[in-house]
Amino acid sequence: MKTKFQTPIIIVNFKTYSEATGQKAVELAKHAEKVSKEKGVSIVVAPQLADIAAVAEAVEIPVFSQHIDPIKPGSHTGHVLADSIKEAGAVGTLINHSEKQLKLVDIDAAIRLARDKNLISCVCANNPSVSAAAAALKPDIVSFEPPELIGTGVAVSKAQPEVVTNTVKLVREVNTEVTILCGAGISHGEDVAVALKLGTQGVLVASAIVKAKDQYSILREFAEATKR
Amino acid sequence: MKTKFQTPIIIVNFKTYSEATGQKAVELAKHAEKVSKEKGVSIVVAPQLADIAAVAEAVEIPVFSQHIDPIKPGSHTGHVLADSIKEAGAVGTLINHSEKQLKLVDIDAAIRLARDKNLISCVCANNPSVSAAAAALKPDIVSFEPPELIGTGVAVSKAQPEVVTNTVKLVREVNTEVTILCGAGISHGEDVAVALKLGTQGVLVASAIVKAKDQYSILREFAEATKR
Amino acid sequence: MKTKFQTPIIIVNFKTYSEATGQKAVELAKHAEKVSKEKGVSIVVAPQLADIAAVAEAVEIPVFSQHIDPIKPGSHTGHVLADSIKEAGAVGTLINHSEKQLKLVDIDAAIRLARDKNLISCVCANNPSVSAAAAALKPDIVSFEPPELIGTGVAVSKAQPEVVTNTVKLVREVNTEVTILCGAGISHGEDVAVALKLGTQGVLVASAIVKAKDQYSILREFAEATKR
Amino acid sequence: MKTKFQTPIIIVNFKTYSEATGQKAVELAKHAEKVSKEKGVSIVVAPQLADIAAVAEAVEIPVFSQHIDPIKPGSHTGHVLADSIKEAGAVGTLINHSEKQLKLVDIDAAIRLARDKNLISCVCANNPSVSAAAAALKPDIVSFEPPELIGTGVAVSKAQPEVVTNTVKLVREVNTEVTILCGAGISHGEDVAVALKLGTQGVLVASAIVKAKDQYSILREFAEATKR
Repeated sequence: MKTKFQTPIIIVNFKTYSEATGQKAVELAKHAEKVSKEKGVSIVVAPQLADIAAVAEAVEIPVFSQHIDPIKPGSHTGHVLADSIKEAGAVGTLINHSEKQLKLVDIDAAIRLARDKNLISCVCANNPSVSAAAAALKPDIVSFEPPELIGTGVAVSKAQPEVVTNTVKLVREVNTEVTILCGAGISHGEDVAVALKLGTQGVLVASAIVKAKDQYSILREFAEATKR
Repeated sequence: MKTKFQTPIIIVNFKTYSEATGQKAVELAKHAEKVSKEKGVSIVVAPQLADIAAVAEAVEIPVFSQHIDPIKPGSHTGHVLADSIKEAGAVGTLINHSEKQLKLVDIDAAIRLARDKNLISCVCANNPSVSAAAAALKPDIVSFEPPELIGTGVAVSKAQPEVVTNTVKLVREVNTEVTILCGAGISHGEDVAVALKLGTQGVLVASAIVKAKDQYSILREFAEATKR
Repeated sequence: MKTKFQTPIIIVNFKTYSEATGQKAVELAKHAEKVSKEKGVSIVVAPQLADIAAVAEAVEIPVFSQHIDPIKPGSHTGHVLADSIKEAGAVGTLINHSEKQLKLVDIDAAIRLARDKNLISCVCANNPSVSAAAAALKPDIVSFEPPELIGTGVAVSKAQPEVVTNTVKLVREVNTEVTILCGAGISHGEDVAVALKLGTQGVLVASAIVKAKDQYSILREFAEATKR
Repeated sequence: MKTKFQTPIIIVNFKTYSEATGQKAVELAKHAEKVSKEKGVSIVVAPQLADIAAVAEAVEIPVFSQHIDPIKPGSHTGHVLADSIKEAGAVGTLINHSEKQLKLVDIDAAIRLARDKNLISCVCANNPSVSAAAAALKPDIVSFEPPELIGTGVAVSKAQPEVVTNTVKLVREVNTEVTILCGAGISHGEDVAVALKLGTQGVLVASAIVKAKDQYSILREFAEATKR
């Protein structure tokens, strides 16, 4: 796993925010690339499907898809094919984000597909036991995000430190290699620093970056915080 | 409606076929554009989401998405936003393809979103009564495709002419303006010609074109058949 | 249709309320039966699946299931078979309630299954155009319920009379025979009376009855209101 | 766990087979009860939802639901409430059967609900890694069933012994207490005996029992095989 990407890592989920759609997705990705290079910190961008190609063309930092379907090439109109996002330039994918949840067997199948295609898999989970279950499927990354904090500005690392610690403990019991992230409400550099101190290897963030008036500055704050 | 596109119309669904993914999607779209110009026939291409931008950049014929989700900009990780596919260059979208079926209320919401964004909506339906229900929601196009014939090479227009006729009749009872297509098993120009004679204004096709050794020739055969 | 049940009709949806689970479901059904007989008004009860048999055993008024799946006997663990609810004593079923929404093709298939088994089908819809689409599928009953009013105590018939009227109009354009109900927020006899004046043939109610301290009295108020 | 039920255990899934619907469900349950008492072997029956009450009334052996939804009492029309199946007489439930698959977070929530209501939870899984993930959620039972063998008569214990062994190994790495079953294609007593030898504590069976001309005899054969 360690050869695939450097930790700590910040994954920026563009969701379907208008502030990160189309040309704005490319601009945000360029801010992320700039900060990544200036600070020497691993930053991943996860734009919408239709924007992957343009973003991957514009920047050299890793680009993730927000989702893949557990399918192989064939008759699957409207589904997201691993081969397709890879050819568009993605090097990894979120799986089972709380806004795009999958059946258990489909998470397993999506992780296998990602592995087969040499795509980095980041499975999202809503609580400690689900995080452990996800880790048992051997993805590259598990990201713990309590849905009730997503978008609130109340950081999981500040509001529920013992839950983050417990998640790290339960995940490590079933998987010693997986990279562990946490997310939800991460708004300040301090939230990032605390997340790392609690035993994670990075954060999954969205609104705090995407909806910021100055996306570059908040990205830099987050990146600097990974170095404390 | 009539100002939006010219009929008869041929929509080519690229599905998630490897023969129409990434660079190959662009090549197929160029074949379609060439035939469209040579024959003066309306041909639409529906590539995968990640390929919409590149295809729309490469050709001047209409590009459809294979799917949109019934969502507005916001927190919808992994979903397909109408604004996003439009900014990528799509001018319309399939909705409720038999391989990507939606809840009834989501079909209604997706049609409204398409209308709001000035995107052409093409709702797929599996039988005459479902086609009529879809037509009651006032999309631009209803495409009737019996799933049991999809990909078989047995054309709906040849195998079930009375079902196509009945579909046209039921649809017209609830909607006099909607464009009616049929699909499933369309493999030869003759299948296209018969579909039009049965009262449809075009066809939705996939494997016969995408998996053809000579995509250009079969596209031309289909285009010519619309003129009989 | 008219031979199947008498209108106006009041359908009481027990949902999964604890006030209408198990033995309490039987008690509520007995209140409904008493009012139905006293007032000569058609009242249907729709208990949870596991309660259908006990309720149907206890009362003579019609019992509906809250849902059926579009399946035939076979390997469908955990699904709701039309034959099963019928053998348990149900004479009809809700389909596509806003809390149990189905794909369009599954609504169509469920209506056909109900028809084959001589079960009364009541399809729920969230707005006028979806009501018309549902009516195009030829169910016995269409029930219009705007989800934003469900459980609010703000009656659709009082708050959105023009929407109810428009629903009746759109439904009648595609189906002259279907029974039309409305629901959401119906709390007083007056709400029921207004619903009927707006052109519906009855109401679909839940919390106002189920959660009432005196279920019998509010049922009687609703029944009397159908006679104004 | 051990206080909740005795192992080895045979769970008979009635699915939605017509041979196990309504009155026939009660008859099959009585056969199972007879064999259970005669042989002193733990047999569980899992009838359809609408049949739980009648079956639980008729027999003293444990009755499982085929499914529960991850919901609490409230506005959940058409869903399966843990309280409801418990009041009907069920003492446990299948969760995530391959024919009724759930999202990962819903499996977790359903297990918690079952635990809160003192219902035995049996989570189904399609392969070794998914079985381990399910086990990480701490259900009472994990049942491994490769879907490609379900209903074939080719027993998983005979056809894929190394996969069963591997499943037991992976599950035990994350959960030392959970009861492990296997299923799919179990057709003869020998298949049951082999399943136990491979390290499982029982079997989940369906068609071999339900569709047998002599349900009693095949049940007895299975029960005897657990004693070899």
